[in-house]
Amino acid sequence: MATVKLLTDEEVGAAALAVFDDIRKTRGTEFINNFWRALAHDPEQLKATWERLKSVMANGALDPLTKEMIYVAVSVANNCSYCVHSHTAAARAKGMTAQQQNELLSVIAMASQTNALATALQVDVDEVFKE
Amino acid sequence: MATVKLLTDEEVGAAALAVFDDIRKTRGTEFINNFWRALAHDPEQLKATWERLKSVMANGALDPLTKEMIYVAVSVANNCSYCVHSHTAAARAKGMTAQQQNELLSVIAMASQTNALATALQVDVDEVFKE
Amino acid sequence: MATVKLLTDEEVGAAALAVFDDIRKTRGTEFINNFWRALAHDPEQLKATWERLKSVMANGALDPLTKEMIYVAVSVANNCSYCVHSHTAAARAKGMTAQQQNELLSVIAMASQTNALATALQVDVDEVFKE
Amino acid sequence: MATVKLLTDEEVGAAALAVFDDIRKTRGTEFINNFWRALAHDPEQLKATWERLKSVMANGALDPLTKEMIYVAVSVANNCSYCVHSHTAAARAKGMTAQQQNELLSVIAMASQTNALATALQVDVDEVFKE
Amino acid sequence: MATVKLLTDEEVGAAALAVFDDIRKTRGTEFINNFWRALAHDPEQLKATWERLKSVMANGALDPLTKEMIYVAVSVANNCSYCVHSHTAAARAKGMTAQQQNELLSVIAMASQTNALATALQVDVDEVFKE
Amino acid sequence: MATVKLLTDEEVGAAALAVFDDIRKTRGTEFINNFWRALAHDPEQLKATWERLKSVMANGALDPLTKEMIYVAVSVANNCSYCVHSHTAAARAKGMTAQQQNELLSVIAMASQTNALATALQVDVDEVFKE
Repeated sequence: MATVKLLTDEEVGAAALAVFDDIRKTRGTEFINNFWRALAHDPEQLKATWERLKSVMANGALDPLTKEMIYVAVSVANNCSYCVHSHTAAARAKGMTAQQQNELLSVIAMASQTNALATALQVDVDEVFKE
Repeated sequence: MATVKLLTDEEVGAAALAVFDDIRKTRGTEFINNFWRALAHDPEQLKATWERLKSVMANGALDPLTKEMIYVAVSVANNCSYCVHSHTAAARAKGMTAQQQNELLSVIAMASQTNALATALQVDVDEVFKE
Repeated sequence: MATVKLLTDEEVGAAALAVFDDIRKTRGTEFINNFWRALAHDPEQLKATWERLKSVMANGALDPLTKEMIYVAVSVANNCSYCVHSHTAAARAKGMTAQQQNELLSVIAMASQTNALATALQVDVDEVFKE
Repeated sequence: MATVKLLTDEEVGAAALAVFDDIRKTRGTEFINNFWRALAHDPEQLKATWERLKSVMANGALDPLTKEMIYVAVSVANNCSYCVHSHTAAARAKGMTAQQQNELLSVIAMASQTNALATALQVDVDEVFKE
Repeated sequence: MATVKLLTDEEVGAAALAVFDDIRKTRGTEFINNFWRALAHDPEQLKATWERLKSVMANGALDPLTKEMIYVAVSVANNCSYCVHSHTAAARAKGMTAQQQNELLSVIAMASQTNALATALQVDVDEVFKE
Repeated sequence: MATVKLLTDEEVGAAALAVFDDIRKTRGTEFINNFWRALAHDPEQLKATWERLKSVMANGALDPLTKEMIYVAVSVANNCSYCVHSHTAAARAKGMTAQQQNELLSVIAMASQTNALATALQVDVDEVFKE
């Protein structure tokens, strides 16, 4: 039901296959999820997206699980069903506990509520927050 | 420029003032930011929002800084200017470093991009993510 | 700071002026707010928007104040600052009380919160709601 | 296909069951819809959400049907499929007629259109709306 | 699974049928897609929407394919699944090539990313852009 | 009022300055707009964003003006004020006429309206659009 055909390994060209190979090596699995198979129609976008993703989600000043939960939060706010499913699964694979998931959802719910209230009230930013 | 008057301590009733007092005690400052002064027109909403916020943002399975960064992420995705300013300031007050802020923004940017691509491609959720 | 010049009565053509005249007559005021002065660069869009608006917001199965509050709710969720200001003012002009405004905001806040939770949880629609 | 298991009465703890009981008593039905069964993984969030919802949606300065239509409007603008289905069904259960639903949708469509135009034009808020 | 019944030609009244006839004539096909069959519950909204759509999407200073790709871009950003599917199909019918679709998606992805960054950074508009 | 300081040429490091230089060379102007000066706190994000932007917005199967109008459409739908201003200015610089701008806004307005209606009606995708 995607707007483009999901491409198999046999259907993609060499450039896309090289990205698939790097995904497999990086993740330690043969599995390539649908997102990449749809994106493979544009090998340049596929490569740019994957390489930036790999770099952004690597361990750094924030650990990979924290990054994955931030990813889930954005995906919920942007209402991307595929992304909510895939990044929730990824967060679990990276060790998110049931209690952490509860707290993640509580923060998302709280923020959504106060975002709407601040917008409805059109509150001016306090001077102290501008420093 | 808010859609309601920002209420001073002298203008709010006893119920709202009790919430202001608890905000002051909890945060260890006399300062009450504009959001609460606008919300004080509805003491019930003020109390419900503050009490849930205090509980949700407390230390738990996720630490307060992680929660604050998730809050920023949702506020950016929901495009709430007041909230982006106030919660970025709060994250800094809780110790967010420049490098952590860079990584937070990188994850938000990455997620926004792949959210749009997954939506444009209408990718079906992989079976493995449904388990 | 608009992306187009706000046009005065002297600067618009006959087609746009006819719409301005109808706005004035319908609202019983000489005042034309900035939205229409910006939209006047495209007289066709101006006329189509105003005529549909006039018809949609007229008294019907829903009264004008109820319609105006629904308008505010959509404008908050879409985060349109101009629209939140102008339609909150319009709702007040149509008799919205402080208590009604409080309840309007409470419903918006509640919905924003449960919308986010339902999306985060990716809850399937109950069969009973499909009938 | 939810990101968490929908919990049966037998699977939830005492705290969640007490909320389910109150939902049943308040609504006069044995039926608990999927949203609450998903939310029951976090009894505290379940209780906080239900109790605030019950209070917010009660009869007040706005009647329950008006509140439900505002809820639908926010859910459409936030694009929450579950919420559009469940709150449209709720509005019908509270007496929304076909003509009222038509007008609700007309206002949502109108607001969505003018929200986009005002944002595209970046119209400044008129002084008169700031008072 | 729509929130209203999709109406057949036999179920709609004369006003809605006249719109269906014009859709058929304009598009040169007997097929009426689900959107219009759902909208037919409100013949006035059906007529207003179709007539404005026909005028807006006609050839003008922008050609029909360019307009259709802009339509897809808005539908992706607003996350309307039905709209992404139907307008992607329409763009293809109007001649969108695979390479054009790739570039359309690249621009959408790029814009989504920089939109989020500009919002997170709350960047002030440069004076030069205000002229 | 940005959440980070806008960095001058003197304040950025060599990596960011190299990006600034490429922006200047590519655009044929000394001017660096605020977005890049804010982004320069993270030279890696700055470089990744600029290089992908340069590639994506170059002439291809779609011409630069068409791409810029698609960029404006996404920015409006995502409600990014900075982006609407800067990309509207960019579209004008690339030759967008007043009539083209009118038509761009008409399509955005039309899409926003039918997006909301399709979501409110929860219309199922027609089989014919899935092929």
